[in-house]
Amino acid sequence: MNEALKQAKIAFDEGEIPVGAVVVSKNRIIGRAYNQTERLNDVTAHAEMLAITAAANSLGAKYLIDCRLYVTLEPCPMCAGALYWSQIGEVYFGASDPKRGFRQSNPSMLHPKTQVFSGVLKEEAEKLVLEFFRKLRE
Amino acid sequence: MNEALKQAKIAFDEGEIPVGAVVVSKNRIIGRAYNQTERLNDVTAHAEMLAITAAANSLGAKYLIDCRLYVTLEPCPMCAGALYWSQIGEVYFGASDPKRGFRQSNPSMLHPKTQVFSGVLKEEAEKLVLEFFRKLRE
Repeated sequence: MNEALKQAKIAFDEGEIPVGAVVVSKNRIIGRAYNQTERLNDVTAHAEMLAITAAANSLGAKYLIDCRLYVTLEPCPMCAGALYWSQIGEVYFGASDPKRGFRQSNPSMLHPKTQVFSGVLKEEAEKLVLEFFRKLRE
Repeated sequence: MNEALKQAKIAFDEGEIPVGAVVVSKNRIIGRAYNQTERLNDVTAHAEMLAITAAANSLGAKYLIDCRLYVTLEPCPMCAGALYWSQIGEVYFGASDPKRGFRQSNPSMLHPKTQVFSGVLKEEAEKLVLEFFRKLRE
């Protein structure tokens, strides 16, 4: 999750909503990304989406069954839908997103085989997002 | 929708689940794509996702407020989540997807301002998908 937080900080510095994600396979990082919706002018360019694509490229396979995703913020329904298709083994997220998190839409959106863990380094992830929106309002 | 069906047929010929999508702005096609999850080894490469990205590139803007999406099959939750973020004006889909369609997950996943129309050239779209899975089983 520390690596995901590093990615989120890059997003912060680039004026993007600060979310970072990392995909790990056999204790090796095979995908890392930060939110780039502004830079790419593309609503689909969330950290999780980019990390999933990078990981699949790295594996040469589209399913991430034995992988873990670390993401600093609870995934939105789009990203949860992508994680469903990937059949990823485990998802760890930091801060909850009570407005746009997938659990608001449908808490069982992920694949039935995917295990979910929440609240990992939650304070650091939350602090980044709150700081981002505080600066935006200034 | 005829253009979306053409895209779906390309997918069919390439051994992809045959789904095609087109984004229209002011009666001009600004994004067209077909499902490429196999070719790209990427679960996120659904027709709708690629068409949304292409349309945003064409507009130079990430929101598709005045646009219409035509897609041959009911979008899955991932694609519905992306359409939500895009704030697209109208979504037209052909065949329903009772297993993986977004309406099974949460019927109000799209943006509240997005209008949805279903069943457009439904028979042609269904025929393609059924034919694809019939061939796969042979």
